[in-house]
Amino acid sequence: MSTITVLGAGAMGTALCKPFVDAGWQVHLWGTWLDDHLLDAIEAGQPHPRIKVAAAPGITTFRSGRLAEALAGADVVDIAVTSEGLPKVTEMALDHIGDIGDLRALCLTAKGFWTDPEGKIRLLPEAIRAIAARKGVSLPPLVAIGGPVKANECAAGEVTATTYASTDLAVAEALAREAATETYGIRPSDDETGVELCAALKNVYAIALGIADGLGEATGVPRHNLKAASFAQAVREMSLLVARAGGHAETPYGLAGVGDLEVTGLSGRNKLYGVRLGKGEGPDEALAEMNRLEQTVEGYPAAPLAVAFAHQFGAGEEELPLLHTVATILKGGVEDVYGAVAAAVKPVRP
Amino acid sequence: MSTITVLGAGAMGTALCKPFVDAGWQVHLWGTWLDDHLLDAIEAGQPHPRIKVAAAPGITTFRSGRLAEALAGADVVDIAVTSEGLPKVTEMALDHIGDIGDLRALCLTAKGFWTDPEGKIRLLPEAIRAIAARKGVSLPPLVAIGGPVKANECAAGEVTATTYASTDLAVAEALAREAATETYGIRPSDDETGVELCAALKNVYAIALGIADGLGEATGVPRHNLKAASFAQAVREMSLLVARAGGHAETPYGLAGVGDLEVTGLSGRNKLYGVRLGKGEGPDEALAEMNRLEQTVEGYPAAPLAVAFAHQFGAGEEELPLLHTVATILKGGVEDVYGAVAAAVKPVRP
Repeated sequence: MSTITVLGAGAMGTALCKPFVDAGWQVHLWGTWLDDHLLDAIEAGQPHPRIKVAAAPGITTFRSGRLAEALAGADVVDIAVTSEGLPKVTEMALDHIGDIGDLRALCLTAKGFWTDPEGKIRLLPEAIRAIAARKGVSLPPLVAIGGPVKANECAAGEVTATTYASTDLAVAEALAREAATETYGIRPSDDETGVELCAALKNVYAIALGIADGLGEATGVPRHNLKAASFAQAVREMSLLVARAGGHAETPYGLAGVGDLEVTGLSGRNKLYGVRLGKGEGPDEALAEMNRLEQTVEGYPAAPLAVAFAHQFGAGEEELPLLHTVATILKGGVEDVYGAVAAAVKPVRP
Repeated sequence: MSTITVLGAGAMGTALCKPFVDAGWQVHLWGTWLDDHLLDAIEAGQPHPRIKVAAAPGITTFRSGRLAEALAGADVVDIAVTSEGLPKVTEMALDHIGDIGDLRALCLTAKGFWTDPEGKIRLLPEAIRAIAARKGVSLPPLVAIGGPVKANECAAGEVTATTYASTDLAVAEALAREAATETYGIRPSDDETGVELCAALKNVYAIALGIADGLGEATGVPRHNLKAASFAQAVREMSLLVARAGGHAETPYGLAGVGDLEVTGLSGRNKLYGVRLGKGEGPDEALAEMNRLEQTVEGYPAAPLAVAFAHQFGAGEEELPLLHTVATILKGGVEDVYGAVAAAVKPVRP
């Protein structure tokens, strides 16, 4: 029996336990120093406080002080903390990685950007590689897990399709074969950069989709044409930027792109934040209200990072008008949100 | 001043008048023998009965008996009738096309499949070409108009993005420049086949998106992961089939594909029909109820035609599992709708 250790007992970490249990793996779920109340609920068999679904039965939980035990004997490790928490948890995990005899893969459900010590914006696998290089630890193959996965549905065993991407395709393929279940389908990919970048960008573009919904709600007249045009423009820009950053232009056309954008535009906090903007709230006012409701809007900090990331690859406003428009709206620099988004998604300007 | 004659005073024909009026064109709107009540409302300045929005002011209307007058002096003609009505209206229009000195383009907002006299399933531009060849009429360049356009929003002047595709790209580009407005953006394309096929297929795939929504409504637990996986699978299958049929594999990744699928999955009759199936109604029962509400479900007759069309190009169930699953569901051959769609969208079967 293979063992996976999931680092981080938040929504996505807990959700990922379910298919692995179903696929016959032994599952260790380690909680960070911020996750004690989550583990309390899990260990009591109560619904996970964030996703309102009980964790898969049969998993073994570990409190933050028991990281070495949690990692002992792991065949696969998954890092499932926030992008902010990733560097520290990676540091901690790498202290033990050398002790694990034959770790087959280090997976990553954490998503976002990382600012390296020189101030350059990087994707999270680069953070892990930089930290490992600094510590002199040799890493197993990395596997980026992306695609359209709402944690509560995955945790409940509802049908879910996802992407496992590794620069070593055979690793992704093997893991996909061993982790897939009747309800958890996995498409292997060799495009780590594309999958990671789609995941980081989609939260920003979901704000644009929410704006279209909010404009419709505010007026009683749906803005479905605008939402559809924004969706297509988002996919177009993601493809352009992924290709520029060294990934495959086609990756955003699959589960990691259109699939994830679809699920993020249906619900989720970034879309809800966009709805507020579309209804006329200011960006800071809307953010304060979301924070008051304890809803993190990942797309808000990600927008300027995505703009900076794109600039590193020579892609500016001309090529990525929707990304830039969202970033400008979030800075409070736009009076007419409808007009700004409309201009950004227009295929040919008259 | 250029003149466009729109043939068919239904939702899409009437909607198309709006951007052309705004762009400074003279617009003739001809109603078929079934459209008198629609023209009554338009001429009285009342909302169009189907889209609840008034037609653009300044258009000139023509009853079915005045086709020659409607076409006289046209620079561009658009056929905006149903796919069933297309052969007859094309016949009638081609009787006058020779009299129009310099018709620049014959556009097509009608969408669907056509069964040729040998029983082969074809796209609508092929129907027009076959009819013209039989009549010995030489055609101007055809322009397929597709992409995410809800008629009521377009007619109201809300932001809309669309695609104009012609095998002669310069024709599509010129028309796009002359018809685009502040709120009506046009992306030119040379992929007539891709744009037409996406438009015909998306009604079938929208049923699958509706099924996911209906499953969620029936249980109170959203099936967003399933909807997203279905969306990505639909795009994948459209790309495969478009390429096989001689179009560009990339066309479904743009406005005509992901854009149109997004808008069709947000609302529309095909999606609503799918919701009924997801909630447990049988396909015939649900169709009868839609018909009672005077809501045509284009995806219902289109599904077996799409399957037959794909077979002509050697694409079967193995390559197009979601298309085949929807077609089988519509034939009443599926007990477990959730399981069937889930199996069809699963990237790797365990």
